[in-house]
Amino acid sequence: MPKKLSTPLIIVNFKTYLEATGKKAVELAKKAEKVSLETGVSIGVAPQFTDIAAVASATDTPVFAQHVDPIAPGSYTGHVLADAVKEAGAVGTLINHSERRLKLSDIDAIIRVACEKNLVSVVCANNQTVSAAAAALNPDAISIEPPELIGTGIAVSRAKPEVVLDTVKLVREINQKVTVLCGAGISRGEDVAAALRLGAQGVLVASGVVKAKDPYRVLREFAEAAKIQEKQSLEG
Amino acid sequence: MPKKLSTPLIIVNFKTYLEATGKKAVELAKKAEKVSLETGVSIGVAPQFTDIAAVASATDTPVFAQHVDPIAPGSYTGHVLADAVKEAGAVGTLINHSERRLKLSDIDAIIRVACEKNLVSVVCANNQTVSAAAAALNPDAISIEPPELIGTGIAVSRAKPEVVLDTVKLVREINQKVTVLCGAGISRGEDVAAALRLGAQGVLVASGVVKAKDPYRVLREFAEAAKIQEKQSLEG
Amino acid sequence: MPKKLSTPLIIVNFKTYLEATGKKAVELAKKAEKVSLETGVSIGVAPQFTDIAAVASATDTPVFAQHVDPIAPGSYTGHVLADAVKEAGAVGTLINHSERRLKLSDIDAIIRVACEKNLVSVVCANNQTVSAAAAALNPDAISIEPPELIGTGIAVSRAKPEVVLDTVKLVREINQKVTVLCGAGISRGEDVAAALRLGAQGVLVASGVVKAKDPYRVLREFAEAAKIQEKQSLEG
Amino acid sequence: MPKKLSTPLIIVNFKTYLEATGKKAVELAKKAEKVSLETGVSIGVAPQFTDIAAVASATDTPVFAQHVDPIAPGSYTGHVLADAVKEAGAVGTLINHSERRLKLSDIDAIIRVACEKNLVSVVCANNQTVSAAAAALNPDAISIEPPELIGTGIAVSRAKPEVVLDTVKLVREINQKVTVLCGAGISRGEDVAAALRLGAQGVLVASGVVKAKDPYRVLREFAEAAKIQEKQSLEG
Repeated sequence: MPKKLSTPLIIVNFKTYLEATGKKAVELAKKAEKVSLETGVSIGVAPQFTDIAAVASATDTPVFAQHVDPIAPGSYTGHVLADAVKEAGAVGTLINHSERRLKLSDIDAIIRVACEKNLVSVVCANNQTVSAAAAALNPDAISIEPPELIGTGIAVSRAKPEVVLDTVKLVREINQKVTVLCGAGISRGEDVAAALRLGAQGVLVASGVVKAKDPYRVLREFAEAAKIQEKQSLEG
Repeated sequence: MPKKLSTPLIIVNFKTYLEATGKKAVELAKKAEKVSLETGVSIGVAPQFTDIAAVASATDTPVFAQHVDPIAPGSYTGHVLADAVKEAGAVGTLINHSERRLKLSDIDAIIRVACEKNLVSVVCANNQTVSAAAAALNPDAISIEPPELIGTGIAVSRAKPEVVLDTVKLVREINQKVTVLCGAGISRGEDVAAALRLGAQGVLVASGVVKAKDPYRVLREFAEAAKIQEKQSLEG
Repeated sequence: MPKKLSTPLIIVNFKTYLEATGKKAVELAKKAEKVSLETGVSIGVAPQFTDIAAVASATDTPVFAQHVDPIAPGSYTGHVLADAVKEAGAVGTLINHSERRLKLSDIDAIIRVACEKNLVSVVCANNQTVSAAAAALNPDAISIEPPELIGTGIAVSRAKPEVVLDTVKLVREINQKVTVLCGAGISRGEDVAAALRLGAQGVLVASGVVKAKDPYRVLREFAEAAKIQEKQSLEG
Repeated sequence: MPKKLSTPLIIVNFKTYLEATGKKAVELAKKAEKVSLETGVSIGVAPQFTDIAAVASATDTPVFAQHVDPIAPGSYTGHVLADAVKEAGAVGTLINHSERRLKLSDIDAIIRVACEKNLVSVVCANNQTVSAAAAALNPDAISIEPPELIGTGIAVSRAKPEVVLDTVKLVREINQKVTVLCGAGISRGEDVAAALRLGAQGVLVASGVVKAKDPYRVLREFAEAAKIQEKQSLEG
């Protein structure tokens, strides 16, 4: 993980929400930066490809691509090149999100490309066994996200704690070094705290922040909860 | 077609070539702009998603996305939203390039989305019947590109003139309004002239320009040839 | 169209319903054969790949594959070869069903392969413009099926008559020879009659027959309705 | 593994070769059965979907599908249902062959479906890390096949022994129970022997047998080599 990406880590996926497109992507990233500076909690953002450069140049917030393709530079039209997202200012990329599922061999190839280009690889997984499989591919991080909870406001860390627990356990058996995040339905500070108590080292969030009336306030709540939980864990 | 996009039209597809990524994408777009200003020939560029905003803000060159997805704003991770490429400054988009082939129903949906967002839709087709099918979907333009000639330097307009002729004929029978371009192997001015003589209204080029030692010189040659041929056609 | 496939034509898509898998596929095909013999109306069936041979050898019912791949014989694992469905006894194939949408260039390639192998090609389309595009590819038949009505029991021919009318009109402008079918929600004889009155030459049905308590009775109702409507049209 | 599938195991992938389609699929399966009876070595065959029933009813050879889809019975047109290949007589299925690569989450889902239906799951993997990932999904078997060697006649077990060795090691660390096969380029008895010496428990072959002048002789050579090597290993 690069310096700015310590755990507990919060990553905000902007998806293709209009509330986080273009100028609004930059504004939201600035709010994330503010919360990170105020709380000391690491917060990354994953805007659309077209917004990576603007977000990366306007803020110090670590920027992730939402996807890259398993390709080298060359004759690929309409593809996303790791070199290009890197030059635009990204420090990492999401891979295999439930809304952009990939072939197993492509996930493997993308993790290699990301590693070569020094991009942090965050592989999303829809359940425990898929998380375990992803761990064998040596990404930097895995985010377990049960697709049925995405966008519901029902937090994985509270509605399906066993999914997070099992994932942490299975992933650890295969790979000690990978960072484990969880996501889906995270919408309150206590959801974040619950995630950390279950062994996750951070959260991947989207609508809970992007669609919130006051994204700054929500992110601040998330970061505070993460900070307090982290402190309790270290003391406990 | 928007004002800046008159025919004959040259579109340069930057693909994921490193020679046309990041800063180099902006430099190449500036060369295209220079040639367009010097010759009066319309030249568009299709950089990677991450470079659309920089190219559009640094030049007056009409910018095309290389692809957009058939989606509305919302929960789509790693997708390309028409609204986002529009806000980044694009005036149009390639659709269904041979290196990014799409489902028929998705091409139909993307053309609709492009139309709603006032983006020029350029559908690529691999042969004559596919061009005819694409014409029935009412895009702004169709580019016929035999995939076996892409990147070879053997120009479609000279090696397979019947493909261009047939495409123009079949497309015209179905749709009078669509602009017909051709591409694949275009590398010299005479290839461009030959394309226009066959009834194409422009060319879609990539490696012939991007990988050239002197892209400015090649583009200038293309534009001059297009201009002369256009003049001869009007007089003839 | 081969001899056994006259219009009006009813094709029953068995999908992957257990009610039409294995032995039950053969039983259902025999019911279709019985109705066809009794009424003189042409009825085809589209069982799963694994059931094509058994259905084709046990009945005289014309058998369609539900899909074939755009490939020649060779190194393709897990693909469906036109030669193989032909040797198994199929006389045609569905292409691009809403539940198996295909790339435009692949639809074009599959129609060519089907034509070479003397297989009747039935391209499914989700709306009018896609139907028109499909017509330009010269298939034997097109079936318009609005996906939102599939499996609902709300018949396209009664809920969206304009979709069928427009499709017939647009397809005819591009291609005089193609047979036009319609599908989605067809569950009663009057739905079939309505389809024919709108200019369709037959119907593509699935759950309305396969999931019926008495598939024979439903098919018989469909065939009778088709026969009466056909007679009225000829007299009218 | 069902009774007929002991190790060392040879699986012959018929792909979409005309030499192994329709009647010729049955003939080739009979040769495999003959060799298996003569040598006592377990030999499975993976014919096309359309040929599964005929092969399974004409021989005692264990039959594998080349692919199944991650679906339950229902509204899926052109898909391959586990229940259907099972009823047709298959005892297992290949999954994720290099010529039919699948999404990670789909491989996971297919393995579950196969397990429920009591079908032996053989997941193909293109390299060592992908093999390790597949092992975490608990299939019955994994076959490591470097795609660049498929169909070349250059055996993986001789040209890239480290790939087989690493795969066996990595897979064993994650999953003790999974059977490890290897494939690509296997064309002589010594290739099979080499594979077993490296720790593989069998081979997945295709053109080396299917395209051979005398498939019976080649399969016999493979089986003899496997038998001798197995004996030496037990004694050694």
